[in-house]
Amino acid sequence: MADSELPTRPKTESTNEAAPAEGGDSKNASKNALKKAAKEKAKAEKAAARAAQEKAQAAAAEANDTAKGLYGQRPDSEKIVSTTRFSELSEESYEKEVTVVARVDNARVQSAKLAFLMLRQQGQKIQAVIAAAEPISRQMIKYTGGLNVNSIVQVTGIVKKPEIPISSATISHLELHIRKVYMISEAAQMLPMQAEEGQVDAEGTPLVTLKTRLDNRVLDLQTETSQAITWISSGVAQLFSEYMIKSGSRWIFTPKLVGAATEGGSNVFEVKYFKRNAYLAQSPQLYKQMCIAGDMESVFEIAPVFRAEESNTHRHLTEFAGLDFEKTFQNHYHEVLDFAEDLLVFILTQLKERYAPQIAIIQKSYPKAGDFKLPKDGKALRLNYMDGVALLKEAGVDMSEQERFENDFSTAMEKQLGQIIREKYDTDFYVLDKFPMAVRPFYTKADPADSRFSNSYDFFMRGEEIMSGAQRINDIKELEASMRAKGLDPTQEGFEDYLNAFRQGCPPHAGGGLGMNRIVMFFLGLPNVRLASLFPRDPQRLRP
Amino acid sequence: MADSELPTRPKTESTNEAAPAEGGDSKNASKNALKKAAKEKAKAEKAAARAAQEKAQAAAAEANDTAKGLYGQRPDSEKIVSTTRFSELSEESYEKEVTVVARVDNARVQSAKLAFLMLRQQGQKIQAVIAAAEPISRQMIKYTGGLNVNSIVQVTGIVKKPEIPISSATISHLELHIRKVYMISEAAQMLPMQAEEGQVDAEGTPLVTLKTRLDNRVLDLQTETSQAITWISSGVAQLFSEYMIKSGSRWIFTPKLVGAATEGGSNVFEVKYFKRNAYLAQSPQLYKQMCIAGDMESVFEIAPVFRAEESNTHRHLTEFAGLDFEKTFQNHYHEVLDFAEDLLVFILTQLKERYAPQIAIIQKSYPKAGDFKLPKDGKALRLNYMDGVALLKEAGVDMSEQERFENDFSTAMEKQLGQIIREKYDTDFYVLDKFPMAVRPFYTKADPADSRFSNSYDFFMRGEEIMSGAQRINDIKELEASMRAKGLDPTQEGFEDYLNAFRQGCPPHAGGGLGMNRIVMFFLGLPNVRLASLFPRDPQRLRP
Repeated sequence: MADSELPTRPKTESTNEAAPAEGGDSKNASKNALKKAAKEKAKAEKAAARAAQEKAQAAAAEANDTAKGLYGQRPDSEKIVSTTRFSELSEESYEKEVTVVARVDNARVQSAKLAFLMLRQQGQKIQAVIAAAEPISRQMIKYTGGLNVNSIVQVTGIVKKPEIPISSATISHLELHIRKVYMISEAAQMLPMQAEEGQVDAEGTPLVTLKTRLDNRVLDLQTETSQAITWISSGVAQLFSEYMIKSGSRWIFTPKLVGAATEGGSNVFEVKYFKRNAYLAQSPQLYKQMCIAGDMESVFEIAPVFRAEESNTHRHLTEFAGLDFEKTFQNHYHEVLDFAEDLLVFILTQLKERYAPQIAIIQKSYPKAGDFKLPKDGKALRLNYMDGVALLKEAGVDMSEQERFENDFSTAMEKQLGQIIREKYDTDFYVLDKFPMAVRPFYTKADPADSRFSNSYDFFMRGEEIMSGAQRINDIKELEASMRAKGLDPTQEGFEDYLNAFRQGCPPHAGGGLGMNRIVMFFLGLPNVRLASLFPRDPQRLRP
Repeated sequence: MADSELPTRPKTESTNEAAPAEGGDSKNASKNALKKAAKEKAKAEKAAARAAQEKAQAAAAEANDTAKGLYGQRPDSEKIVSTTRFSELSEESYEKEVTVVARVDNARVQSAKLAFLMLRQQGQKIQAVIAAAEPISRQMIKYTGGLNVNSIVQVTGIVKKPEIPISSATISHLELHIRKVYMISEAAQMLPMQAEEGQVDAEGTPLVTLKTRLDNRVLDLQTETSQAITWISSGVAQLFSEYMIKSGSRWIFTPKLVGAATEGGSNVFEVKYFKRNAYLAQSPQLYKQMCIAGDMESVFEIAPVFRAEESNTHRHLTEFAGLDFEKTFQNHYHEVLDFAEDLLVFILTQLKERYAPQIAIIQKSYPKAGDFKLPKDGKALRLNYMDGVALLKEAGVDMSEQERFENDFSTAMEKQLGQIIREKYDTDFYVLDKFPMAVRPFYTKADPADSRFSNSYDFFMRGEEIMSGAQRINDIKELEASMRAKGLDPTQEGFEDYLNAFRQGCPPHAGGGLGMNRIVMFFLGLPNVRLASLFPRDPQRLRP
C-alpha cells in the first residue's frame, strides 16, 4: 500500500525549528523566540481545544466501542506475552499472528476506516496497517493513527505479504495487519527533533545539524545508522580484548586519579581530592610500565583517557576510550611491533567479517570515504619514517634536513602520505617505524644504530594516526638522562615511584596506545569523531 | 643441595627498617633518622672500599679469566637467543641446555668454588648453581653469587635433577647448572623491601605491613601471591565481558566527565573543566539508562567509578573498577534478575575452573576464609529482604517495624546473615530481592503489589554486598514523582537530558552495577580490598 497521503493530526516539530542553538546567532535569536512563542501559544490552544473535544467524543463512544480492551492501556492479560523481534520475521511468518514491541516511527490516519503505523526496532522499520472490520472500531483506528511519534507500543497482528513492497520500510516484503495495540511508554507529542538522518536539502546540507543531533543524542542513537556505529564501537573493544586475552595478556585497571601531572602539566585536568589536588591520567603509560616492572609480562587496559586540550577539531575529544597494551620481548622490539600489527589486522579484518550488515547501513549515510582497504596478504605494510619522507618528496613535498629530524609530519602531510600509500600499496592501514627521537616522549628508546631516530612507531588509518607506540627505556640511567635531555627533572614530585620501578630492575618492553573512537571514525570514514562517541566531550560540550 | 649458609655480601635492607611511614610516629622518627643516616654512611663507606678493591682485583684477574665472555655484560652473540619459560620445564628437560631470563630472588657465594642463585619468574622459583670447573672461573662464581637481588639476568645452563628436592624453590624437582650468566637489568643494591609475603613474626603480625607493600607496589606485584591475584582480577573482567557479549549485549563507553553532580552532591569529585566545573561520574547509571532509551536494548560497561567518600575501611576505595549492565525485559524484571544471577554463577564457577592454580597459591597466604562455596545446583539462592529479616530474627537479631522499612541491614547484620545462610543453605553467594523503597535511589521502581518495597536486589558474597540493582522507573510522571518524594528537584540542572530520555519513550528495563575489586576480595577471602586493586586509591593514598 502506498504511503503518501498527508496525516490528519499535527506532526512532530520539524527538526530545523527545534532546539535553539546554544551561543547561536544572537541577533536573530530574540526575533525567532518571539515568533516561536506566538506560534507555540496558538498551537497549545488548538491542542487544548482538540483534547477537550476528543475527551467528550471518547466518553460518548466508549459505550458502544466494539474494540474495547483491544487498544489503549494494556490489560493485565496482555502483560505476559511472547513477543517476536523484527529480525525473526520472514516470508515463513506470512498469515501468522505475532506480537511485537516497537517504537512508532510514524502514525497517520488515512480515513475514518484506515490508518497506518510505521513501527521501528533499533532503526529497522515495518509497516503496520489497521482497517475497520469487526471488532476493530473507528475509535481504535483513530487512536492508532493518532499515536505520538516515538511512543513504544505493543502490537499484535497478522503478518501479510503487501501487494507491492513497502519502499519506506527497511523490511519491505511484509506488513502487519493490526489486531491489538497497547501503549508501553508514551512519548511527548513534540519531540526536539526527528530521529532520522542523512536527509539533506537541495545544497546537500544536512537538515539536522550535528549539534542538534548531539544535543538530543538519545533520539539520535535510535536511528539505524547510530545503532550500527555503536555496534562497531562495541566490536572494536571486543576484538581488542579477545586478541589480547588469547595472547596470554592480563587485563589491568590502573588509576585515573593520579597525584602529579607527570605527562605534561598543561593538558591535564585538575581534581579536588579531599584536602589536596589530584589529576586525571592522560594515559596509563607510566602505570602499564610499572606493571611490566612488576613482572606481569603482557598487560592491556581498556579505559577512559582524559586530555585537557583546547582542540576544537573534527578528531579531538577531551575524553575518549583508550586501548592500551605493553609487553616484554625477548630479543628485539619488532617482536612487539609484529604483535601490534597483527592485532590491528585482526581487528579490522574481523570488523568487516562480523559487522558487514552494519557497515553497509553506515555507508548509506556516509558513502564518501568508500570501503576501507586492508592489505591483501593479511600482513600490515610497514615503512620507516624516512620512507614516508621520501614518498612525500617524490610527490613534491620536501622537508628540510632540520624539519626531518626535529619535526613530525603535519596533519596535511600525513593525509597526503595516506593518499600516496593508498595508490602505491592499495591499503588504508599502514605503519611507520623509526620516528625521530626529537618528536617522541622521554621514555622512548633511541635507535641504538642512529640516535637521531628512535625505536618508535605510529599506526595510520586513511592517513590519520590511530596509535603511537615504542620500545621504552628500561635502564634507569638511560631513562634519567633522557628525561634531562627533554628538559624534565627526574627528582620532580610524581616521578619517584615510576623511576623506582626501574631502579629495582625492569625487563625490556614495548607497547602502544590506540584511540578506539578514532579507529571507528577512520574505519567507517565518518566525518567527525563525535559520531563515534556515545556522549562526546569537547571543550564546549559536557552534555548530555 | 642445601640452602642454609649465610651469604658473604651485605644483604638487602630488612623490610621493617625501610620506607619510613608517611605521617608515622614523629617522636621516634628523628631519632631513627639519625641512627639510620649514621648506619647508611658506614655502609656506604664500606661499599665504596669494597668496590675499589673489587675493581683492582678484577683488572688483575681479567687477563687469565677462563670464563671471559661467559658472564657480565651480554655480548652481541647472546642477544638473539631462544629462551625457555619456567613453566615449560619438566623432567623431560633433564640434561638439556636451556636459556632463561629471570629475576635474582636470592644470590649467595658458598665458597670460592661454589655459588647459588634462586631465580624467579612471576613468583615461581628455581635454584641455579655454579661450581668451578673449566671454563668457569672463580671470578665468574664471585660475580654470580654477588648479583644484586631482583636484577634480571639471562642464564644458560643444564637442567639437572637435584639429589634432594629444593624445598625453598617452588619448582623443587629440578635445578640449573649454570654455564653463562648475563645482566639484563640490574637492580639497586638496596631495595626498599623484600618481594616476599606471608612472613609473620612470633605473634603472627606480618613482617611487612600492608602500607609498606602498597608504597612499594611494583616489588609487591612480583610475588607469587600478587601475581595470582592480578590474574583473578583479569579473569573477572574477562568472564563478565565474555558473558555479556555472548548474550548479545553491546559494550558501551559513557562519559566520566559530567556537567552536574546528579547522584548526590557530597560524594562527588569536582574537576576544573576549562572555564567551568565538571564532576567525575559516581556510576554510569543515568547514561546506561539513556542508552536503553536510545534503543540499545542490552548494554554493559567496564570502567572506573569515582567516589569522594571519606571512608577509611577495609572495603572502600575512592576509585574502583565498575562492571555495569542494563537490559530491557519483556514481561517482568525477574527476567533480568535471572540473567544477572546466572552471570555471577558463571563468573564464580569459571574462576574456580580456569584459575585453580592461582587460587591455591593465594590460599597459602590467605587461608582463613576457606574455599568459596557455590550453590550445588548451579542456580543462585534468591531470598526476599523480609526473609533475611526473619532469618536474623530467628538468630535473635530483631528489627523494629520502622527499621525494617526505613533502614537497611547494617554491615554487621549483613555479615551475620551471610553466616546464617552459609550454614543453612551451604552457599557463600546469594541474592536478596525486594528491598524497602526507602533505602533505594530515586530511579528505583516500587513494587506494584506493595509500595513499601521495591523491585530491587542486592547480591552478596560471604555476607558482603558486591552488586546493587533494580528495575528502573521508565515512566516520566512516575520518575518525577519519585524524585520529589526523595527530596530531589526534577528541574535541577543536569537532570534535563536524563528526564528527556523518558519523555521521548523508554522501554521497561533493569540492571545492576558490580564492584570488580570486591568480587575478587570476597571470592578469595582477602582481608583488604586494596590487595585486589593494582594501585589502590583511598582518601589517604594517591600513590604510587
